[in-house]
This record gives sequence, structure tokens and C-alpha cells, in this order.
Amino acid sequence: MSQSKQAWNREEFEAQLRAKGQSYHIHHPFNVKMNAGLCSREQIRGWVLNRFYYQWIIPIKDAAIMSNCQDRETRRRWISRILDHDGFGDYQSDTESGGLEAWTQLGIAVGLDRDTLWSLKKVEPAVKFACDAYVNFARQQPWQEAICSSLTEMFAPQIHKDRLATWPTHYPWIEAQGLHYFRSRIPLAQRDVDHGLEVTLSHFTTRAQQERALDILQFKLDILWSMLDAIERAYPE
Amino acid sequence: MSQSKQAWNREEFEAQLRAKGQSYHIHHPFNVKMNAGLCSREQIRGWVLNRFYYQWIIPIKDAAIMSNCQDRETRRRWISRILDHDGFGDYQSDTESGGLEAWTQLGIAVGLDRDTLWSLKKVEPAVKFACDAYVNFARQQPWQEAICSSLTEMFAPQIHKDRLATWPTHYPWIEAQGLHYFRSRIPLAQRDVDHGLEVTLSHFTTRAQQERALDILQFKLDILWSMLDAIERAYPE
Repeated sequence: MSQSKQAWNREEFEAQLRAKGQSYHIHHPFNVKMNAGLCSREQIRGWVLNRFYYQWIIPIKDAAIMSNCQDRETRRRWISRILDHDGFGDYQSDTESGGLEAWTQLGIAVGLDRDTLWSLKKVEPAVKFACDAYVNFARQQPWQEAICSSLTEMFAPQIHKDRLATWPTHYPWIEAQGLHYFRSRIPLAQRDVDHGLEVTLSHFTTRAQQERALDILQFKLDILWSMLDAIERAYPE
Repeated sequence: MSQSKQAWNREEFEAQLRAKGQSYHIHHPFNVKMNAGLCSREQIRGWVLNRFYYQWIIPIKDAAIMSNCQDRETRRRWISRILDHDGFGDYQSDTESGGLEAWTQLGIAVGLDRDTLWSLKKVEPAVKFACDAYVNFARQQPWQEAICSSLTEMFAPQIHKDRLATWPTHYPWIEAQGLHYFRSRIPLAQRDVDHGLEVTLSHFTTRAQQERALDILQFKLDILWSMLDAIERAYPE
């Protein structure tokens, strides 16, 4: 039983977490196709529109984590994620506008309109269920577990870089400015991962807890993967 | 039945909400005694220590409201309350340090130490139950109702002004700097009330809903009042 196994040291535990990258949706057939330039305009729009729902729940999920978190210092750091995403102030800069607005600009760049996007009406039910599972996890589980589930961000910089490297060539019809969201996330993802790893490596210390952390990360990877399954099904060739 | 009664117009509805001020804990015997200079050091310390629990739950309560709120613009405004309270950055200024830190300074000024305060161990159970009822309400009810419950802030500037006007004379043993929390809240309370009223006056529109809003405000007034009941019982003459 896992209780009897020895705990991994921090380096090995982090390596085990990072090894989960093999199940990251970067390897999903739909994502591979997208970055190979094989998606139609309809499919790109379908992805942007459905993925918007994920963006849309992020501040709600992060507020749920903060609402379960009794540690002021953690909240003081975590709140940046909400500010990053919702933005703040008067929309005077990209930072003030926030990630949700940047994604809206991506939507407009691929030919969607703001109201369609924000209405959430065309989002696939399975995409909603997957994203809502993430919010519910953050609502119901201890904040350290919810923070652990955010560690799919370890793998995010590469997926953003891939898009920035391939989309301008494959999809010249998308105005370059629309890709700002992907660019903006690269440094933020690194900062977020540093904090997420700090919490996870310190909180899950026995081998059984460490294995629980891997299960949590897998749960989150499954959410991202199943979103692409649903999008692929809804927007066939 | 209330369904058949006509809705109040905005002015009348706001007047009804403000009339609830008669149940505000500013009128509680313990508060009256405190501002009349009749409390012992032990009683002042007991109040500061117990009331700290209320301060402590505020960011958790506000994050719960944000986590239930699907409206980005409301979240962008509401988040200020968490920043005000938890602070942000490096504690370089009063604003960065935040309200929880300011209350900690009040605690130190009345002779408590930081660890005792933050341990929450001496908080009366009834005070915890009352405050937790507030958090649970914010977790479980629609965000507009939770926002309505925050409207006891309409009555807060006066209670802060009373303390600033009376404590330096009555309790010269409290270092003046310790009262900074009360001073800092006066302008913030006004800003918060403006937003809270905006939401409440727009959301509760039928007479039955407006009466529900009054009940919600009464629930919150009861929380504050019962905290003082518990403190008064725990720290008798």
C-alpha cells in the first residue's frame, strides 16, 4: 500500500508532477491539428468560443480558492490571478483590461462577436460540465488541493508558444493582435507555477499525499482533455 | 400579503434600508459603555480580540461573494474590498498593509500580542458562530443578497467617528496610532456603501423582494449585535 512506501523528496515529487505533462492537452489530436494548420475557420472559432468558457470560470474558481483559504499571505499572492484575469481599473492598458478581455479580442480576431462569446450560449454542454467540475473542486476541497489542481500551468507556456509560432503562418486571416492573450500568459504562467509548486511541494509530504497530488493533477488534465474531445465532436471536418 | 403591496420607489426603499440603523450595534449597551469611557482595559482587549475574528473572516466572505458572482464588472469593483483588507505588495504603506494589519496594530496598542490575536484561540464561540453565519450566507446565497447584507456599512462611519472622538480622552493608555483602523475605514465605507446600494436598489424591485432585502439587512444587524452580547457576557464588570 502507498502508506508503506517512502515519500519522494521534493525534486523527485516535482519530477513526478512534471511527468504528468504527457497527458496535457497539447498532445490532444485536436490541438495537434490546430497547430499544424489543419483546422477550418469554423473549427478555430468553435475552439475559441468553447475555450472562452474555461477563461470565464477562472476568476470564479480563484475566488473560491481564496474563500477557502485561511492564510492571508497565500490570499495576498493568489489575488493576482483574479486581477490578471478580470483586469481592474479603467481598461487603459492590456494589464488593466485583463485576460478575459484579451480572450474577447482573440474571439473578435477570429470572427466572433463579443455578445455571442459572452452569452455562453454556444458552449458545448460537455465543456461546461468539465469546467464546472473544476470550479466545484475549488469550492469543495481544501485550498492546497485546489492549488495543486492549477499546476497544469506548468505545461502552459509551451502550448502558448506553439500557437504564437504556428498560427500567424497557418491562419493569416487572424489579425496578429488577436494573439496577444497567448503572449501575455507566458510570464504570468511562470509566476503562477512558482507559487503553485511552492504550496504543493510543501503540503503533500507523505507518499500517500503525494500520490493524491498526482491524482488531482490528472483530474485537471482530464478536464482540459475532455474539453477538446467535446470541441472536436462538435466541429468535425 | 406582501405580493399585493406596491413596490417602494428607490428613494423610499433606500429610506427603509437606512431606517434599519436603529438596530445597529452602535446602540448596543456594550458599545455605548465603551464610547462613554466605562470599559476596563480587560473589556477593551476582549472586544478588540473578539472583533478581530470578524475582521479575519471579511476577505473570506468577500471572496465567497466573488466566487458566486458571474458579473465581471461587479467582481472588478468588489475585489477592492479584499485588497483593502488583506493588503497587497510589501506592507510598505498603510494601504499595502491592509485593514487586517491595521486591526493587528490596534490589538498591539491595547496590549494584546500579534500571536494571541491571530491564533483566534480566545475568540468566544458565539462570536465565531455569528461571523461564520455571515460567511455561510455569502457562500450559499446569490451574490446580490450577500451584497445587500454588507449594507450595515451604511451605519459604520458614525461608529468609527464616535470611537475616534471618545477613545483618546477616555482611554489615553491606548497609543493614538492604534486607532488608525477606524480612521481608514471612513472613506472606504462610503465607497463600499455606494456600490452596495447600487446593487441592492437595482436588484430588489418588487415589494416582496424589497422586504426580503430588509430581512437580510436585519440578519446582518443581528450578527453584529449578538457578537457584542457574547463579548459583554465574557467580559463582565
